[in-house]
Parts: sequence; C-alpha cells; structure tokens
Amino acid sequence: MSADEPEGRAGVGRIEAFSDGVIAIIITIMVLELHPPVSERMDQLWSLWPVFLAYVLSYAYVAIYWVNHHRMFAHATHVSNALLWSNILLLFTLSLVPFSTSYLGEHHIGRNATILYLGTMLLPSIAYAWLQRVIRRTGRQTEAALAYHRQTLRKGALSSFLYLLGMPLTLVSPWLGIACAAVVALLWILPSGPADRLFGGRA
Amino acid sequence: MSADEPEGRAGVGRIEAFSDGVIAIIITIMVLELHPPVSERMDQLWSLWPVFLAYVLSYAYVAIYWVNHHRMFAHATHVSNALLWSNILLLFTLSLVPFSTSYLGEHHIGRNATILYLGTMLLPSIAYAWLQRVIRRTGRQTEAALAYHRQTLRKGALSSFLYLLGMPLTLVSPWLGIACAAVVALLWILPSGPADRLFGGRA
Amino acid sequence: MSADEPEGRAGVGRIEAFSDGVIAIIITIMVLELHPPVSERMDQLWSLWPVFLAYVLSYAYVAIYWVNHHRMFAHATHVSNALLWSNILLLFTLSLVPFSTSYLGEHHIGRNATILYLGTMLLPSIAYAWLQRVIRRTGRQTEAALAYHRQTLRKGALSSFLYLLGMPLTLVSPWLGIACAAVVALLWILPSGPADRLFGGRA
Amino acid sequence: MSADEPEGRAGVGRIEAFSDGVIAIIITIMVLELHPPVSERMDQLWSLWPVFLAYVLSYAYVAIYWVNHHRMFAHATHVSNALLWSNILLLFTLSLVPFSTSYLGEHHIGRNATILYLGTMLLPSIAYAWLQRVIRRTGRQTEAALAYHRQTLRKGALSSFLYLLGMPLTLVSPWLGIACAAVVALLWILPSGPADRLFGGRA
Repeated sequence: MSADEPEGRAGVGRIEAFSDGVIAIIITIMVLELHPPVSERMDQLWSLWPVFLAYVLSYAYVAIYWVNHHRMFAHATHVSNALLWSNILLLFTLSLVPFSTSYLGEHHIGRNATILYLGTMLLPSIAYAWLQRVIRRTGRQTEAALAYHRQTLRKGALSSFLYLLGMPLTLVSPWLGIACAAVVALLWILPSGPADRLFGGRA
Repeated sequence: MSADEPEGRAGVGRIEAFSDGVIAIIITIMVLELHPPVSERMDQLWSLWPVFLAYVLSYAYVAIYWVNHHRMFAHATHVSNALLWSNILLLFTLSLVPFSTSYLGEHHIGRNATILYLGTMLLPSIAYAWLQRVIRRTGRQTEAALAYHRQTLRKGALSSFLYLLGMPLTLVSPWLGIACAAVVALLWILPSGPADRLFGGRA
Repeated sequence: MSADEPEGRAGVGRIEAFSDGVIAIIITIMVLELHPPVSERMDQLWSLWPVFLAYVLSYAYVAIYWVNHHRMFAHATHVSNALLWSNILLLFTLSLVPFSTSYLGEHHIGRNATILYLGTMLLPSIAYAWLQRVIRRTGRQTEAALAYHRQTLRKGALSSFLYLLGMPLTLVSPWLGIACAAVVALLWILPSGPADRLFGGRA
Repeated sequence: MSADEPEGRAGVGRIEAFSDGVIAIIITIMVLELHPPVSERMDQLWSLWPVFLAYVLSYAYVAIYWVNHHRMFAHATHVSNALLWSNILLLFTLSLVPFSTSYLGEHHIGRNATILYLGTMLLPSIAYAWLQRVIRRTGRQTEAALAYHRQTLRKGALSSFLYLLGMPLTLVSPWLGIACAAVVALLWILPSGPADRLFGGRA
C-alpha cells in the first residue's frame, strides 16, 4: 500500500461505507416515531395515518439520496477536504429529516409543519449540489461521467425548484406542498427511459 | 476500474452492505421496547413476557430475512433499477416490524394486534418475492442458482399462505395466529435435509 | 466467482460485517439510557452514577465480545447453518444487555437487578461457547487455531463460572456480584502474557 | 490467508469498519434529542435553538473525529491489544457526547452544562492522544507518517488546551466556553495550507 492510498479509491470506499451507515440509521430511526396507540381499537390505529404518510414520503426521499449518492460516488477518484466536508454537510442536512418528518406527522400535515418539511428537503439538495460540483471537478472525467453529471444536475435543480415552489403553494393548501415533494420523489424513482439506460439500469 | 463497475458485483456489494446496516438497526432497535419495569419486584418483570415473546419472534423473523437475503444476493450479478427499488421496498416493509412488534407486545398478543402483526409479516414476503423475481431473471443462470430459486420460491409462497391463514385463525384465538408465524420461523431455521445440503450448509 | 463462494471466506466476511453492525448498535444505544437530569444542579448529575457505572461495565463487556468475536472468526473458513444460527443466537443474547443494563442502573444496583444482570451476562457466554464449538469443528485446524480455542474455551468456562458464582454472592451484597462481573472484564482486557503473545498482540 | 492475517491490514480494516459503525450511530442518534414541539406555532420552534446549536456543534465535533480517525488509521499496520483498547476507549468517550449535548441543549447552554460539555470534549482528545501514540510507535514509520503524527499531535494538544481554557472562561460566560469549542472545530475543518497539502487534500 502506498502512503497516500487512503486518499485514493480505498479512501473513497471508507467515505461511502460511513455515509451508508449514517443513511441507514437516518432511514431506520424514523420508524421509532410510529408509536403504537395506547388502545387496541382500530380507529386509533387509523389516526396514525399522517405519521405513516410522512414516514413513507421521507423513507422514499432518503432512499433516493442513497441511490444517487451510490451512483455519483462511483465517479469519485480520490479524497479531498472539499469531498469530505461537502459529504459531511449532506449527511448533516439529511439527519434533520427525521425531525421534520415527526413534526409533519404529529401536526397532521399542518401549514407550518409542511413548510418546515419542504425546507428540510431543500437543504440536502443544496448540499448535494455542492458535493456533485466537487466530484465533477476532481473525479473521473470520462464522457459517461460528464453526461451523468449534466443530466442529474439538471434533475437536481428541478427538484430544488419544486421544493421552493411548494412553500408558497402550502399557504394555499398543505396538500399542494406535499404533492410537490411527491412529484420530486416520482421524478427520481421512475425509470426515465434514456436516463435509465445511461445509468446502466436494466429494469 | 471500468466506468460501469458500480453496476457489477461491486455495486451489488454496496447494496448488500446497506441492507445489512438497515437490517442490523431494525433487529436491534426492537430491544428498545423492552422498558425496564419501574418497580424491582419480580412479578413486574414477569409481566413483560408478551413484550419479550414478541421480541423473540420478530428477532427470529428479521434474522431469517437477513440469512435469505445473504444467500439470494450471492446470485445477483449487477445493479438495475428494479433490483435497487425492490430491495428498498423490502427494507421498508421490514422497517414496519418494530412498530407492529411493539403493538403486539403492548396489547398482550390481542386480536387486532396479532392480525396487524401477521399483516406486517405478509408485506415483506411479497416484497421479497418481487426481489427474488428480479434476481432470478437478471442474475446468475447456473443450475444451482435456478434450483435455489425454485426451492425458496416454493417455501416463500408457503410462508405467505401461512401468514394469510393465520389472520382468520386469529379471530378464533390469537395464539393460533402466533402459531402460524412460529411455524414459518421454524420452517426456515431448521436445516431441511436436501435443501440444506444444496445451500452448502454443513450443520 | 464460483457458485458456492458465499459459503467461503466472502460469506464469513458478510457475517462478520453484520455482527459488527449489530454489536456497534448494541454498544451505542445503551448511552440513550443516560437521560440528562431535569435540573442543572450538580448533585442531580451525581445521582446518575449507578446508571453511568452500569453503562461503563456493559460497554466493556460488549467490547470484549466484539474483540473475541473478531479474533475467533479469523479461524472460520466457511458458512454453515450452525455457524449462522449460533452467531444469530449470540447477537440475540447480547441484545438483551441494554435492557438489563438500564434495569440495573435504574434500580441502583439492587439485588434483583444485579441477579438479572449476571443472568444476561451468562446467556451470551453460553451462546458464544456453542459458536466456538462450531468454528473449532468446521474451521481452520492449524496448530495456532487449536491452541487459541483451547485457551479461550478455558477462559470462557471460567467467566461463566464467575457469573454463576456472582448470583448467590449478590444475595449477600450486590457489590459482590458486580465485582464478579468486573473480574471477568479485567480477565479479558488485561494482556495475559503468553496468551497475548499467541494472539499476536504487541501491547 | 496466513494464520495471523487478522492481525495485519485486514484486522485493521475490521477495526475501522466497527469504529465507523459506532461513530455513525453516535452522530445520528443525537438528532433524536430534537423533539418536535407540541404546538405548531413558530415561536415554539424557535425555542429549540439551544438544542439545535448544541447538535450542530457536536455533529461537527464527532465528524472531525471521524475524519482524523480515518486519516490516522491509514498509518496503522497491524492489530495489537493496545490498538484495540485505546480505540475502544476513544469510542467510549465519544459515546458520551450525545449525553452532554442533550444536557447542554436542555439547559440552554447553562454554566454547569457547558463545563460538562467541555469535559466531554476533553476526554476523547486524551483517548485519541493515547491511540495516536500507539499507532506512531507500532505503525508505519515512513517520513510522511511521522510528519503527520508530529503535526496532528501538536494540533491535538492545542485543542485539549482550548477545552481546558474554556472551563474557567465558562464561569465568566458560557458563551466564552462555547467559543473555545467552536475555535477547535474551525481549527480542524478549515484547510490549513501546508498541513492540508501534506494530508493530500486538494480543496
């Protein structure tokens, strides 16, 4: 092993593993907010639906970040201070999701809670854009990598715009805000023809 | 490293590692529901038995999924959108287990709680069937792999049937429902002669 | 990759990684029991000492299991049903440690709580003995491996005996029970001359 | 695989992976202290600022340890008892951070809470110094490794001094204590010219 191997792909691998650990914990601790109702009556269970809906949405949201993180890091070639800290910032912003999710669920998708929730979705998209900028500049410069960055940066900007758009729409109805967040989720989950073929997906 | 390595075995490895992380957290946070009783009297401790029984059953259940996931992923050869999202769906359905486990324990294996519990066991078995279908179609096509899929798909269908059967039986007595779940657990834990030899187990 | 690679060292590696994940969560969630006191007065903080002492002891205890698990698994060569399930049983018994630790702390090292605590320490030592028996029979048969098993099985039996001894002693005073547990911890932490040289430790 | 491979780089790798797991959990469970306020009014949300500030500071703090741990372990070459136990001690001291963070947040950066917080920051810096001493003595002895140790040991001693300095300053005002902790964080996060070039960072 050469002296700077930790800054090469092996170092990138340890960052990926650490990020996976943090994301796995974030995605899982959200279920702790699903407190079983005190009574066993079925209507009590139904009253949990806003908490459950918030959980489903946030689970999809964090899972999408994991999938994208996974694909983007394949283009990173070495560890730099900027890579380390933009990644740590991304994980920090993602760690706020369980908080705003439980706030959203407990206040039954209320106005303020929905705006805060959209804000918590906007923050990781900004941190992710910084991280991607770092990887695009310092990582692999192949044709496929550059095409990947071009496509996903555009998709990411559209996502951020939809979160921003959702905030004033929430003043009309929180459901419009939630719809914006749901559209972003579908945008990333559904296989998008050419994009998907590019990513090597064979759905 | 070639440009699409993340879609090969290395990409599969990162999915396995992420799944292991999520499953490790799911299996461990369930113990947080074992709240120590306020009084130190021994009868208070005994009153925890339904919570403890629910924990044992769910622990075995999640452990079985981990073992099967581990064996099945050995037959996956590359990452596709379908593999990613069927796996994420499986982890989502498993993440509901701590909730229904604590519901089951707190309501002392009551009727409604047992039906909900069997339902939470049914969901991952459906997601798992989808994931296995993806791996069977896109993964390794060796004789051993196909035999593995044939055997476990049959065993999986039997498990789903037992969960479904448990639901009406719970209306007779919750213990019949729990018995159905326990039979499924034993079905997967006990070494099953030829199947076990096939899996390479040398117990 | 051959069809049964998952049953070779690669499969052993995934079991190690999963076990590490579960043990990391067990060792860390115990700190969640250290609830900050409501008042900021220093005497309130001091009143946490039994919870803190229980945490220190259990942390050392789980860490020792991790260290031993790490060393013993180096002698495993392939995955069998018995290896999988004895390991899962060991992780289950370890997962009870946070429960009995918080019970011990909340009841200020009381009589019943100490006996339960020693019982929770005894269970993993039995599961560990089974796991070691599996690895000794099916794993590497080198001179070093066999010497390792001989030495640690003896040390493990002594530990189990000390936990058992601690139970009646707790009836005299819980501190005698805690002392037994502490002696076991020191037995494994302190470098023990020849044993340490055998393990390759260079402290 | 030779019989003592687990004591070589592979053994070091498993320690790194376990440490990453524990650090990932520590850094993430702190967010569980951000309880959503009961009312949805915005001023209730603002009242969470001390808890949020404590979270940000501790997140940065634990992240710095992860980054440093990652870089330093690249110079470790084999596993010894001293390496294992100094690392386990470091993880133990870090595991106290969620406790003192929540104490700091709940008591609104009060005097006693700030002193305790600085104390909890001092402990890992002592454990880290011991761990680094072990790796410097037993690890890679290249010019780059020795220069790395020289630089970071000096920076570490300065950090410990700042935590100590913060304690009497807290008696004047808790904000002076928090400022000391923040200065240490900046000291490690900001790229420091020559040091950064040495670490191979290309920010």
